[in-house]
Amino acid sequence: MKYPFSDRVKSLKPSAIREILKNSSAPGLIPLSAGNPAPDAFPYEAIRKASAQLLQDTPIEALQYGVTEGYAPLREHLKGYMSQKHGVGGEGDDILITSGAQQVMDLLTKTLLNEGDTVLCESPSFIGSLNTFRSYRARLVGIPMEEDGIDTAKLEEALKSEKNVKYLYTIPNFQNPSGITMSLEKRKKVYELCRAYEVMILEDNPYGDLRFAGEDLPSIKSLDTEGVVMYAGSFSKVVSPGMRVGYAIGPQAVIQKMVVCKQGEDVHSNMWAQIVCHRFMTGFDYEAHLETLRAIYRRKSTVLVDAMEEYFKPLITWSRFEGGLFAWCTLPDGINMLDFVKRAMERKACVVPGTAFLTDETEPCRSFRINFSTPTDEQLREGVRILGEVAKEMSHVQ
Amino acid sequence: MKYPFSDRVKSLKPSAIREILKNSSAPGLIPLSAGNPAPDAFPYEAIRKASAQLLQDTPIEALQYGVTEGYAPLREHLKGYMSQKHGVGGEGDDILITSGAQQVMDLLTKTLLNEGDTVLCESPSFIGSLNTFRSYRARLVGIPMEEDGIDTAKLEEALKSEKNVKYLYTIPNFQNPSGITMSLEKRKKVYELCRAYEVMILEDNPYGDLRFAGEDLPSIKSLDTEGVVMYAGSFSKVVSPGMRVGYAIGPQAVIQKMVVCKQGEDVHSNMWAQIVCHRFMTGFDYEAHLETLRAIYRRKSTVLVDAMEEYFKPLITWSRFEGGLFAWCTLPDGINMLDFVKRAMERKACVVPGTAFLTDETEPCRSFRINFSTPTDEQLREGVRILGEVAKEMSHVQ
Repeated sequence: MKYPFSDRVKSLKPSAIREILKNSSAPGLIPLSAGNPAPDAFPYEAIRKASAQLLQDTPIEALQYGVTEGYAPLREHLKGYMSQKHGVGGEGDDILITSGAQQVMDLLTKTLLNEGDTVLCESPSFIGSLNTFRSYRARLVGIPMEEDGIDTAKLEEALKSEKNVKYLYTIPNFQNPSGITMSLEKRKKVYELCRAYEVMILEDNPYGDLRFAGEDLPSIKSLDTEGVVMYAGSFSKVVSPGMRVGYAIGPQAVIQKMVVCKQGEDVHSNMWAQIVCHRFMTGFDYEAHLETLRAIYRRKSTVLVDAMEEYFKPLITWSRFEGGLFAWCTLPDGINMLDFVKRAMERKACVVPGTAFLTDETEPCRSFRINFSTPTDEQLREGVRILGEVAKEMSHVQ
Repeated sequence: MKYPFSDRVKSLKPSAIREILKNSSAPGLIPLSAGNPAPDAFPYEAIRKASAQLLQDTPIEALQYGVTEGYAPLREHLKGYMSQKHGVGGEGDDILITSGAQQVMDLLTKTLLNEGDTVLCESPSFIGSLNTFRSYRARLVGIPMEEDGIDTAKLEEALKSEKNVKYLYTIPNFQNPSGITMSLEKRKKVYELCRAYEVMILEDNPYGDLRFAGEDLPSIKSLDTEGVVMYAGSFSKVVSPGMRVGYAIGPQAVIQKMVVCKQGEDVHSNMWAQIVCHRFMTGFDYEAHLETLRAIYRRKSTVLVDAMEEYFKPLITWSRFEGGLFAWCTLPDGINMLDFVKRAMERKACVVPGTAFLTDETEPCRSFRINFSTPTDEQLREGVRILGEVAKEMSHVQ
């Protein structure tokens, strides 16, 4: 039988980069390519307790159907917490619990985008989100990144010239993959521009709590007085990604449509996970837990930076990062990045080629991404040593 | 700010019927309108044990990212189980774990359907699935139901005359809402027709294990030698709907596309729930559990039928049902069904008006749906008494 695939999946072609990465989880490989939280970052004692308790106290609640909007006590608690601690969510806003923050990307796109409409995004940006936008046949327009975040002059040009722009997608804190944090000045500018052009902002903030240096900056959503911003939060990097619990905070009218779309996708998110997240936030010392995470990643980032100082200099450079899980490294002119990544993989060191994060994978790119949360300290040092060695060899060959 | 909603959500209008049902979960109401498993049908002792064990043995596995295809041991076990016990899944087939079976409806539609393409469905049919198809701007064409399932002559006509038909959606066992089970003869006929016209079949089987009378019939998928059928299974009615674990078994080429679509929607399904389902199926007596469920629903259905015999006859009739969670009842000519439902609700007895399950809600319809899994025995008897009373009053008034 021949299957009549829809246009949207016909155009989802397997990425050349995915092919390179296909075997990156084989045993013996050094996993600098993933984005998994560190195994010691999981609060599993607390989760074990919360889970046992709730399956004892309220098993039916955890196992029965729930409402699409999400577990009411978690919604209420998050509303208060995000508003008080981060200034996120105001009068005209509502909250929706999702099956991971990825679903926020999906639902907002479904709610706003017709096929062929435009999404502005940072370039490079998170490949998972870009692929979600692509699955709705979005036209992706990448805006270059600068050291302090998106190039706002280029953003203004795009807002002026591009047709049917539905939203700007941004990760302001410790961006994936670049590690870059948007300056306060640029946050204000981005907000003002999008407000003026009546284009929504999708602010994705999975790493915001993982700052291990410098000072916290206000989210773009906290500047929002006009319902311009949809904020995507997630428990994946601070509690557990396997639970698939995220949330959207944004204009009521948009959230309402997203609820209808979610109903058609998965009815509601896993109840156990929602209740565990609620009990973990309210029954344990959540702030102390976040501090523990920051300490773990601060230490691991130091291991990485020390190794890069030793093995990368002066050939490979890297962007400064004050939090998150990634470092963005750039090869010198003349070393072919894709060849470099392939060769490093042959020696068991896996990183993600920078082209994977571009709106157009065929654009020239000399950067690659290192993740420092998944590997052990030893793997980190050994991986960086191999990468440095390969770069040295490739620069001699020329 | 004005939000530029997509055409697909603009056309998702709030249903008139939903408005009627809006308050159906208010306290004091008799819930004959829901579709929740009975509280005593949850195997919570076993789930408690399985959960405690897995959070002790393999907490990281339960909390870390998983692969989109699903937890490998669950996939393997289900493949074997469904093939051996139900003849579901053959050589060219693959399996995908989803966030509830609703996601199978979503992913298959996303994979096959362009806006404006046609989906054939039974009329009446499950409103949740119809709404999912609508969210992709499907053109729904309803094929009438007969006592032994879909009208195959009308199905053939539709296959002949309708344009761009992408699949037929059917619930062959204890259909929601009609309770009807498709005969073996019709299963064969439906399969042959769809195969001949090269139109896929989406076979949704959430209630198949809940047969409390008569003999099991082979699924349509078990007749499938040519990759025509996508089978949707679910743990919602047999273990727990709050876990949101379902699965699709169907042609590899289609499953592969669905995997890519799922990646963009929620990356993967909740890991804890997938592992609990696997451990529950393999570490406990799953068949004895299914037998317990059948006994629970057999008993409850008897309570309902006895009450209907007492209070409905001769005004209200109902279709025969040998399993599932629903009874489909029909008012005599001359009683307005929507008025009847409203009036019953005023007296606290909530049922779902039949029009909710039609592809065109404005079509005439004298039926309504009763659920017998959610209410207690007392509520069932009292609800049916009220419904009978209202029907009697409305027939006198004329």
